[in-house]
Amino acid sequence: MAQVTIGNSEFDRDTAVVRRSPGVYDAELSAGWTIIHAVNGGYLLALMGRALGDALPHPDPMTVTAHYLTASRPGPAVIRTEVVRTGRTMSTGTATLVQFEDDGTEVERLRVLAAYGDLDALPDDVRTTAKPPAMPARAECFGADAAPGGRPALPGSSAITARLDVRLDPATCGWAVGAPSGNGEMRGWFGLADGRDADPLSLLLTVDALPPTAFEMGLKGWVPTVELTTHIRCRPAPGPLRVSITTRNLAGGFLEEDAEVWDADDRLVAQSRQLARALLD
Amino acid sequence: MAQVTIGNSEFDRDTAVVRRSPGVYDAELSAGWTIIHAVNGGYLLALMGRALGDALPHPDPMTVTAHYLTASRPGPAVIRTEVVRTGRTMSTGTATLVQFEDDGTEVERLRVLAAYGDLDALPDDVRTTAKPPAMPARAECFGADAAPGGRPALPGSSAITARLDVRLDPATCGWAVGAPSGNGEMRGWFGLADGRDADPLSLLLTVDALPPTAFEMGLKGWVPTVELTTHIRCRPAPGPLRVSITTRNLAGGFLEEDAEVWDADDRLVAQSRQLARALLD
Repeated sequence: MAQVTIGNSEFDRDTAVVRRSPGVYDAELSAGWTIIHAVNGGYLLALMGRALGDALPHPDPMTVTAHYLTASRPGPAVIRTEVVRTGRTMSTGTATLVQFEDDGTEVERLRVLAAYGDLDALPDDVRTTAKPPAMPARAECFGADAAPGGRPALPGSSAITARLDVRLDPATCGWAVGAPSGNGEMRGWFGLADGRDADPLSLLLTVDALPPTAFEMGLKGWVPTVELTTHIRCRPAPGPLRVSITTRNLAGGFLEEDAEVWDADDRLVAQSRQLARALLD
Repeated sequence: MAQVTIGNSEFDRDTAVVRRSPGVYDAELSAGWTIIHAVNGGYLLALMGRALGDALPHPDPMTVTAHYLTASRPGPAVIRTEVVRTGRTMSTGTATLVQFEDDGTEVERLRVLAAYGDLDALPDDVRTTAKPPAMPARAECFGADAAPGGRPALPGSSAITARLDVRLDPATCGWAVGAPSGNGEMRGWFGLADGRDADPLSLLLTVDALPPTAFEMGLKGWVPTVELTTHIRCRPAPGPLRVSITTRNLAGGFLEEDAEVWDADDRLVAQSRQLARALLD
């Protein structure tokens, strides 16, 4: 088996974009990254991130905001980018992802506003007070096949679970056996199933890859993302990542999900927050 | 003295926009909201928020992301909006704020991507686990004139301090007397100086109105905002607001500032996060 590397992996092939003209890219949304009713939002974000990384003069996403407008479907898509500003150390751009109905009508799926920079050019100064999440060793966490009777019964597709190696902290797995903790917390180890190491683009996938905290809060309905903002703070080291997601405020039919991603060197490599709808049942 | 109300106050007058054509607005950036070298970022955001509230079919900002591109100056500005999507309960739009150089060159200051909804139409369901910040009563907190020798010496303008009624928790005021705590925390009571009550638009100002947490972390330089995302979660009740800002990760010359805003009814009315540059000295 050929070695899987950054640039030569399932994730890289499925997030590839082909430049059609300056700033315009063709993409193919893979059915391999669907979950329940939708193409995974983090996968879509990584695809947009790849297009913006080509369109902008700086290589790495530093802060990326995505608004999810309509549900994407596997199949062809077009990404159009606009360079908003080019600075010395950072540049800013927008991207829109569109798909086409059978009658040719264009429908926008996603709108992104992002700033890119060069993570390798940042100073080494670290004065963080953040600590990695307390969670059991990877071997003591639960993979997608560990729940009694196989994976928890979710309606629709679970294709993405075959592409991810997510192992959840047992303390945040109660939902899968009908006994949610009631806490707005979800924690787990994250890797890509084929062993590809993390990079800034795959971190855009990582922040939206765990089950919704709402499941542990006893909600059973889907939790569609309205807006997701991710800050990539550091290039991740090789090895497994730890992801900790918390929700403090479920109110008025909306909730926030704050994610932190830690690498094998105990560096906080990404922070994200999303506003999601809680479809109460 | 005429009663100050929402719609008839200094803040409302200084964030007024005049529709020039569909989606395009004239504005006048007031010198009254400058701090140190810049027009306050939250004031600019409120101005953009007002234009978007006119351009979109829904009244209230629910999630607003702003990228700060170049330093705004007091004086004329133009805001151009675009409606991205109109849904039943939410709509999405973008806005750009531009100013003009003496030779007529247009320079973009700010780019915004936002979703609007109707806060009054949200269900009453509240399952929040968030608690208001622990801080002393308002009378025991420090206003801008309380530091020894008057307000702390900041270079440049402090015009905005006359328009705000910010009273900082003494525990986060060490920076003002040369003894920063070293913690990435800033807390205070917030009001508008003329007594105008809060609304969703003024919350966009509130999230960026306290001194930077970086001051309490011992940094003396300016902390320019790269990107600021604000979620408005609830219409605020009349009365003073409490604001709590925390920074967990100062690394690589960047830091995040997470703000929570609580109203007099102990409701979490806004959450924001910004990515800022730490100009290390």
